[in-house]
Formats: sequence, structure tokens, C-alpha cells
Amino acid sequence: MEFRMQAIGHVESPYTSEEQIPKGRGAKHEAEGFLVLAPEFAEGLLDIEGFSHLFVIWVFHRSQGFSLLAHPPTASRPHGVFATRSPRRPNPIGLTVVKLLGREGNRLRVKGVDMLDGTPILDIKPYLSSVPEVDLRRGWLDEE
Amino acid sequence: MEFRMQAIGHVESPYTSEEQIPKGRGAKHEAEGFLVLAPEFAEGLLDIEGFSHLFVIWVFHRSQGFSLLAHPPTASRPHGVFATRSPRRPNPIGLTVVKLLGREGNRLRVKGVDMLDGTPILDIKPYLSSVPEVDLRRGWLDEE
Repeated sequence: MEFRMQAIGHVESPYTSEEQIPKGRGAKHEAEGFLVLAPEFAEGLLDIEGFSHLFVIWVFHRSQGFSLLAHPPTASRPHGVFATRSPRRPNPIGLTVVKLLGREGNRLRVKGVDMLDGTPILDIKPYLSSVPEVDLRRGWLDEE
Repeated sequence: MEFRMQAIGHVESPYTSEEQIPKGRGAKHEAEGFLVLAPEFAEGLLDIEGFSHLFVIWVFHRSQGFSLLAHPPTASRPHGVFATRSPRRPNPIGLTVVKLLGREGNRLRVKGVDMLDGTPILDIKPYLSSVPEVDLRRGWLDEE
């Protein structure tokens, strides 16, 4: 089954190459940037200011092909790609939670950018609830 | 810019029609189901058991067309589609956080399903961190 997706806008980010993006467990993403919607989609942002945080769904547009095993920089051995954030996924979709700082028309100023400058955006959604930290388990079991 | 995405698997859910799915602010999603990966992608699940919660990125496969304004059942007036969870989005992508209960080969037993039975899955990612509840603001400003 195949699905066609279109960019609704792009990211303006301080990062122009992969190496500049902080990686690994506990990496801080404090960078500010903009989510810029194509003007024809700007109406879809009405009332978005009511949310402090947003999900951004985007495309790893520079990634080519995929591998079912990935070896993150912080891991001692390869793990399944779905247990990692590797860009080389069957569908090269990225997901980032950003903090909404403000809106200027079709431009959202956000904090927590970890995408490259020019990254195509597929969707923006309100971040509604979170799993309490105390309930989270995260890590490959032998590397906790 | 257009991107082609393929289903990597599908959801087995108790819900066979939209009306059965709890909706609106505070809706509880306690339903259990399975994320079933196509066998050729199963290797990508290696070590996924290390995570208690997963992001599932999927397709609103029954949704047709989109509207930039959406009127959620709980809202008093329409809001921008990107400030809602409406299925009628420019890219009909859904996002759900589920709790991983167990794995049986290419089948992940999960809790928190809010998709229809047969929903195509595009990606699965580990849920790594959450925004503390106290830092969240969510809602359309005049309806808090």
C-alpha cells in the first residue's frame, strides 16, 4: 500500500549539516527556529497559540534507503531501526516535539529544533498529554 | 514536493468504525490491540522491548480530502486543523502513543490503541522523553 504525502512547509533551523545536531541520550535540543507553512496552509494554524508544545512530523529528506538494523552513536551494538531514531527508516519520517514561542502569520517560532534547515514538514499536531516520567522505560535492555 | 510512503504493517484494533473510538479532551484510550509488522520488516523490532512506550505513525486511510478548519466534537467553534486531531488533514497522518505490553515475533501487543482495525502503519519510534505536565498548555485559548 502506498501513500503520497506533500510538504506543507519547511523548517528554518540553525543546523545546515548533520554533524551540528546534538545526538544521543540526553542530548539537549535548545535550538530555536521557525516552522514556515506554505501560505495556502496558513489558515490551518488558527488557534494554535493555545498549545505550549507541538508535534512536528517531517521528512528526513537527505536520507537515502534504509536499514533494518541501526547503530546509534551511543549504542554498543546495532538495534532494530524501530527501536532507534535512525534517519534510514523504511519511511524516512521524523518526529520532534517543539515548544511554541510565538506565531507570525504563517511562521511559528519554536524551541527544540533538531532538524536540518530546509527540512520538509508533513504535519503539525497539538501535544496534548504526556506519559509521566516515572512510567517511562527507555533504552535497549542491556545498556540501561 | 511529494514523498511516497509505504505501509510497514497494520493495526489490529477492537474498533471497526469511527463512532466506537472515544473522542475529545480527556478521552481514555485503554483499548488493547496489536501492531503487526509485515514479516520483511520484523528485524527492525530488535530490542524494542527496552521501551515502555512507543510512537506509532499511521495513516487515516478512510479519510478523504482535507479542510483547513476543523470542528472537533468538544469545541464550540472551528479551529485550524493543525490545532486539532482531525483526520481531514493535508497529509492524513495519525500519531498515537501506546504502551508496549509484549512482543510475539512481528506482533507487538500494545495498550492505548485509538486507530481503526486495519489501519496502515508508517513508522514506529521509541518514546524517549516527555514534557512535564506542569509545563503543558493545551486548548484553544477561549475554551480552557
